[in-house]
Amino acid sequence: MEPAIPAHLAVPRVNPPRKSASFRPPYPSFSARFDTAVEQVVMAYLGVQYATPEPPALVTAALCELLVSVDEADGPEHRDQARYVDEAGYHTILNTLYWTNPEDFDRWCGRHASWTGPQHSSTAAGFFSEVVRPTTRRFETLFSSDRAEGVSVASERLSGEIQEHGYWGGARDRMPLAQTDGLDPSGTPSIEADPGTGLVTIRPHENLCLIRSGQEWTETDGDERRMYLNEVEPVLRAGMDFLRDDGFEIGCYANRYVRVTTDDGTEVDKSFGMSWWRSLEDLETWSESHPTHVAIFRAALKYLSTMGADARLRLYHEVTVVEAGQQEFRYLGCHDQTGLLRLHPTSGPS
Amino acid sequence: MEPAIPAHLAVPRVNPPRKSASFRPPYPSFSARFDTAVEQVVMAYLGVQYATPEPPALVTAALCELLVSVDEADGPEHRDQARYVDEAGYHTILNTLYWTNPEDFDRWCGRHASWTGPQHSSTAAGFFSEVVRPTTRRFETLFSSDRAEGVSVASERLSGEIQEHGYWGGARDRMPLAQTDGLDPSGTPSIEADPGTGLVTIRPHENLCLIRSGQEWTETDGDERRMYLNEVEPVLRAGMDFLRDDGFEIGCYANRYVRVTTDDGTEVDKSFGMSWWRSLEDLETWSESHPTHVAIFRAALKYLSTMGADARLRLYHEVTVVEAGQQEFRYLGCHDQTGLLRLHPTSGPS
Repeated sequence: MEPAIPAHLAVPRVNPPRKSASFRPPYPSFSARFDTAVEQVVMAYLGVQYATPEPPALVTAALCELLVSVDEADGPEHRDQARYVDEAGYHTILNTLYWTNPEDFDRWCGRHASWTGPQHSSTAAGFFSEVVRPTTRRFETLFSSDRAEGVSVASERLSGEIQEHGYWGGARDRMPLAQTDGLDPSGTPSIEADPGTGLVTIRPHENLCLIRSGQEWTETDGDERRMYLNEVEPVLRAGMDFLRDDGFEIGCYANRYVRVTTDDGTEVDKSFGMSWWRSLEDLETWSESHPTHVAIFRAALKYLSTMGADARLRLYHEVTVVEAGQQEFRYLGCHDQTGLLRLHPTSGPS
Repeated sequence: MEPAIPAHLAVPRVNPPRKSASFRPPYPSFSARFDTAVEQVVMAYLGVQYATPEPPALVTAALCELLVSVDEADGPEHRDQARYVDEAGYHTILNTLYWTNPEDFDRWCGRHASWTGPQHSSTAAGFFSEVVRPTTRRFETLFSSDRAEGVSVASERLSGEIQEHGYWGGARDRMPLAQTDGLDPSGTPSIEADPGTGLVTIRPHENLCLIRSGQEWTETDGDERRMYLNEVEPVLRAGMDFLRDDGFEIGCYANRYVRVTTDDGTEVDKSFGMSWWRSLEDLETWSESHPTHVAIFRAALKYLSTMGADARLRLYHEVTVVEAGQQEFRYLGCHDQTGLLRLHPTSGPS
């Protein structure tokens, strides 16, 4: 058993952990270990939305260009693609890109046309990029198994079994900055609209929170697969739908429940929810006590207690709390309920 | 909205509360306010067990003597009676007595034969007294409505709406001593057996934890009453049975789920669970994440969201963390799974 916070990020705690040193987690979990030279990462969510059943040619071309560019110099260390149908019925293809060096990201951006640049201006599709660049003190990761996903694919390795998980409040206890900081939100969104292209740029506020929480059922079969797909997934989906449609008033600015695909669009047995929150505390409150998440938690507990050590479902998440200056959200030609556009005074939740 | 901890017990916090000052509880709750002159209370659980369908004459006489004695000088400020059938199938009648002045309690004890005294030595019935005398810094109370129960009947009044509730960890945030202390358990039980009478006296260890958690459905009717009795109560009972039968290994030394009665044994529409725990942390861990309590929580959330502000079910609890020197558990002629007798090396959980 080792601490979730790696030694080089541990500081004397102002905020004690929620559980005592004698607490024993009910099952093993692991955190990503990054090279100690990594001080800041980039998480970039690049999405494109369209209302037609099939992607317009512009979308196919843009995705193709992206695929080429990520393999060029200073490209991301990891990327995955997913898709979903959003709250307004738009098909959306979402690429998530991770760098462990913001300078690489900046250089890469400098050499390629922006995802939300004027070349993508069209009535047939909307483009968005949601980019945060947290320091390693500002995110934490958690895995139920030894297969890395998300930002952790760019890490050096996974840890051994960690101590701080298996209870409410664990994410905060694993977050290095929370050792000394309450991570409370403050400030108001900065919103700029370019009258020429219609590009809207939003920098939300201090301590905006992001969670990516995923599952993989590739190795499940038989009863386990049926139990996941028939008993767990529908409850998870209901919770995700709640956050998407009615989450705003409890602090969830936007939620997307997406299915991971290969680059040619074939679905694989992985999904994740990614959501933007006003604060880590709002995310914690929903997780701990909202009926929709209590139902998810109960379904997961039942699943895990039925399957025991034989469970082959893989679970992970990454939770990030971002400084205001490390956020840039851009929307070009998107409908007004897209992502953080809901923070726009003329949008707001429908 | 007011702090759960009354002003005279507030000190600069070493341990920050789990929720920020901007947290808004999802529904109103209240805490008991004791006269500031009250520094320490006594909580005495006096039980008698018998295996026969009807109480032996000795039991009836003992209960009668108790009823008389509580109304005499220095008697308890509050008392209630309940009954249950325990894990070994014994009928048990439990009186709970509360004092707000330990000196009154000591004087009262000095004038009456002990509940576990040799006059009650019999093969027909076992007697136990479980007495703790926590300072007001060592317990907290919570009510969903304006009707006091338990130790709080001896308080001056209930507070206005408090801030620290409606999330996991609230009990700790409401406990005055937890502002500066982790309340971790330590030490080992002191166990003495009197070879003459067989009386076993146990003083468990530092920071033993007690919860009494109750519900009253007197004012419910129609759909609400049916929903409580058919959907909530069975789930609550299953959780209580789990703690009673299998709780030991997760830190629940003993659990009793009891039905409140009048003094003549007529059931009223009130019940409570009372359990002894190795630590507040073990109690928290079960509450937050054990399938049996997640099921209770989910049933309660569903009930409350269906009933909304019209709910007439009343809920309350009192949570106490006791110093080793403030504990005295006595068992005379009881079966070896009774209460804290499970801590006896030759007993242990069956």
